[in-house]
Amino acid sequence: MHPLKTRQPYPRNQWWAAAYSSEVGRELLGRTILGERIILYRTERGEPVILSGLCPHRAFPLEKGCLSGDRVRCGYHGFAFSASGTLEEVPSQTAIPAKADLRRYPVAERGGVVWIWTGSEALADETLLPDMAALGPGSPAWATEQHRLATIAARYTLLIDNLLDLSHASFIHADTIPGGNFVAGLPVDLVETPESLNVRRKGNGLPPNPFFKLMFPDHAGPLDQSFDAEYFGPHLIRTGGALYDSANGALLGTQNYLHLITPETPSSLHYFVITSRDFATGNPALGQTHMDMGLRIQPQDKAAIEAIELVLQGLDSPPREVSARCDTGALKVRHRLETQIRAEECPA
Amino acid sequence: MHPLKTRQPYPRNQWWAAAYSSEVGRELLGRTILGERIILYRTERGEPVILSGLCPHRAFPLEKGCLSGDRVRCGYHGFAFSASGTLEEVPSQTAIPAKADLRRYPVAERGGVVWIWTGSEALADETLLPDMAALGPGSPAWATEQHRLATIAARYTLLIDNLLDLSHASFIHADTIPGGNFVAGLPVDLVETPESLNVRRKGNGLPPNPFFKLMFPDHAGPLDQSFDAEYFGPHLIRTGGALYDSANGALLGTQNYLHLITPETPSSLHYFVITSRDFATGNPALGQTHMDMGLRIQPQDKAAIEAIELVLQGLDSPPREVSARCDTGALKVRHRLETQIRAEECPA
Amino acid sequence: MHPLKTRQPYPRNQWWAAAYSSEVGRELLGRTILGERIILYRTERGEPVILSGLCPHRAFPLEKGCLSGDRVRCGYHGFAFSASGTLEEVPSQTAIPAKADLRRYPVAERGGVVWIWTGSEALADETLLPDMAALGPGSPAWATEQHRLATIAARYTLLIDNLLDLSHASFIHADTIPGGNFVAGLPVDLVETPESLNVRRKGNGLPPNPFFKLMFPDHAGPLDQSFDAEYFGPHLIRTGGALYDSANGALLGTQNYLHLITPETPSSLHYFVITSRDFATGNPALGQTHMDMGLRIQPQDKAAIEAIELVLQGLDSPPREVSARCDTGALKVRHRLETQIRAEECPA
Repeated sequence: MHPLKTRQPYPRNQWWAAAYSSEVGRELLGRTILGERIILYRTERGEPVILSGLCPHRAFPLEKGCLSGDRVRCGYHGFAFSASGTLEEVPSQTAIPAKADLRRYPVAERGGVVWIWTGSEALADETLLPDMAALGPGSPAWATEQHRLATIAARYTLLIDNLLDLSHASFIHADTIPGGNFVAGLPVDLVETPESLNVRRKGNGLPPNPFFKLMFPDHAGPLDQSFDAEYFGPHLIRTGGALYDSANGALLGTQNYLHLITPETPSSLHYFVITSRDFATGNPALGQTHMDMGLRIQPQDKAAIEAIELVLQGLDSPPREVSARCDTGALKVRHRLETQIRAEECPA
Repeated sequence: MHPLKTRQPYPRNQWWAAAYSSEVGRELLGRTILGERIILYRTERGEPVILSGLCPHRAFPLEKGCLSGDRVRCGYHGFAFSASGTLEEVPSQTAIPAKADLRRYPVAERGGVVWIWTGSEALADETLLPDMAALGPGSPAWATEQHRLATIAARYTLLIDNLLDLSHASFIHADTIPGGNFVAGLPVDLVETPESLNVRRKGNGLPPNPFFKLMFPDHAGPLDQSFDAEYFGPHLIRTGGALYDSANGALLGTQNYLHLITPETPSSLHYFVITSRDFATGNPALGQTHMDMGLRIQPQDKAAIEAIELVLQGLDSPPREVSARCDTGALKVRHRLETQIRAEECPA
Repeated sequence: MHPLKTRQPYPRNQWWAAAYSSEVGRELLGRTILGERIILYRTERGEPVILSGLCPHRAFPLEKGCLSGDRVRCGYHGFAFSASGTLEEVPSQTAIPAKADLRRYPVAERGGVVWIWTGSEALADETLLPDMAALGPGSPAWATEQHRLATIAARYTLLIDNLLDLSHASFIHADTIPGGNFVAGLPVDLVETPESLNVRRKGNGLPPNPFFKLMFPDHAGPLDQSFDAEYFGPHLIRTGGALYDSANGALLGTQNYLHLITPETPSSLHYFVITSRDFATGNPALGQTHMDMGLRIQPQDKAAIEAIELVLQGLDSPPREVSARCDTGALKVRHRLETQIRAEECPA
């Protein structure tokens, strides 16, 4: 599926953000992830649970049912399942049919996010989870904000493309990102490791602006600002980065924008954004400013990639693509993603 | 089409409810039944007429035209057809083109309902019509209520499944059907005849409730209540049934809920509901209570099966199905229906 | 695609109305024509430009970008193109990628309309443009009105069918076209030339009505009115025509209704209507009456052919069609159009 050249649209042996921790509680939450309907809730002890979302009896969506203790009861004919997915009760009889269990997905909670493993349970490995604390969320040394979850009617790869080519900041976000108009003109530096691929830009000697002032009230002169776009996998991209005193190169702090991307269907995605910083952590006005900016920036990206999705769906064949040099990172990311998917399509 | 294992979605050699009698008059009524557009009206003498609904000239929907006496005139170029479907007038010429007639469907009127025969005209047989008077509608000894016609975005077989497994009353209708919470726990008794298949339950010694009091104001003690689900064919299912005095087993009366189901398209249906009783026939408050309850119950079933229809349309293959013992009746009904459809697909 | 028996839905070596001249200015106008997204604008010198509407970089719709002088700048990453479609600037680099130009469509402006040539550029020939001035628009001797552009959810051939069989005026427009009720009964006269096919009707001795009075205030008696339907190609049909004094046959004037039809997609069309007359050219009340009538007439045709389009999309196979003698012109037009399309599908 354009822009990937693979049969499957996404990898399955992968952790994905399923929900913010605050969304998951003692009510059933229904969601579609990678084309599969799931339900999320917490046990009475507070542990997150993710089960398949359709009753195996007559395919009724389980989120329309209810929780009874740790059990999920279907809202149609009352079949009840334990938190491990086992069918435990059929109201009209005492015997329990075989092979009627729900799939229980491997689940983990990190950095205020409930993560789901969508692939083979045998391969679920918590060491593959992103190190959220290192990026801010969950670490006491950082302040973080969770932005409103957006569900976007576009294939998830369009959002990856979007984030890996930050030159768009100078056009789509010219009025919403302070300093964004500098980005397209900055040289690009590519840092590749097995863990990530970082498309780095640095704006040197950027003149003071009100946003810088809010971040660093004690600093008066120009700043050197990082515009990283670091791909850890299709589930997580970090933008932003370190800020320095232009006068002496001293590190002032790090401002991360964490983009958690989860395919909903082949042509839609869930988009979780978390901002985090290791400076001015006690300043609620700065956090509020990030939330306000997010409300203006995110709809611009949503509108852009939804417009492209509509274009693609109207085409009989994939569009031609002319790439610029600053697309190199995005193209390498596509290649990484294709390699990951192909390894699942045709295991060695 | 799931849940049936047949090529055709529905049988055609079958009477179906096309409209309530009160809907059919001297205005053209357009409707889609089994994927075919039809028009319904009455002649000046009051006889119901059902014709195919597209003008054979340029496929204009005839319900946008008008009646001139007993003739239907197309609203686009004025072609006019008799009540038997014969093209009788072309405004721009005197000659009448050949092979331009509308199909006239066999039609019958019983129990306040206009019935259509959708199959081969040679096989249309009024003795195959349901005996409505025996079920209440059209008999002077019964009181009846016609409930609002609902068109539901779900394949008709999901509504048949729904009605044949009344254990759902204890969950979907727990708040709207008095005594419904007992149903799932009652034992099931299956009565099969060539004419019908009845999934019977009986609640014995049900304690008095306001609804019982309204039905039988002179009776104070507990009741034995029938929860039948009797399939006469895909066009008609009866639920409810007889009520008895628990003390001595005396019959107090019969309360029927008649469910007339007509496929609109492979994935939608028309749902006519008629309630009928042979007791307290002069009590309008009881009739109003039935109408009010219908307004609360029907949307619950509609929401449930529309949710399942959406699920099914989103799946690449039919869902797995785990069945309970109380599904036996519903599964036998599916088998009857498949047998009926296959006899049309491959006549002996 | 019904009603044509060709593989391609429309001819491409053809001029089509792309926009009214007044729609095209110094803002980017996006439109879809024959399934292709285009943008329209004027250079600083006022010349109309039509370019393909998707950025070759990442398929972003260019109408969401902006004009910088005569250049189009993409709103996503800032790629900029000259008015001839040449990629001239990539903000993130100095080199210009090859093969990144937009298609520039041949364009012409006649009669207040911007015309696009959708086929091979080598075959674009301005002598194939309709002689608009002869029909009124652009000629100082005529008064003209441009009616509101309508986009209609129906294949363009349904509008051609509609216009070539004006007997529909007696039914669909019985209440909106003065004298329309006469049309279906008038004899038809077919005039075929290489340039056009004219289905002519003439109403003789039509009694005076308020509309005639408004057109010819100095004339009191009956009129002979032409109801032509003249096909010049799929892009242009003229209806209306000359009006005469019934008493002596003297020509009183000509009232044209020009129907400019442009396929948007295989199942939708843009509909431009221009009325023109060579009499009472200084009477604004008459022009206003035409505009008011258009607001009532056009929605009737739109509703009719959109209803048929919905019918056709719901059918598994093309509908049967019974034709009357007065359809001869429309059927011959279908044949001309099929011949035109086949010549492109299989050049001699």
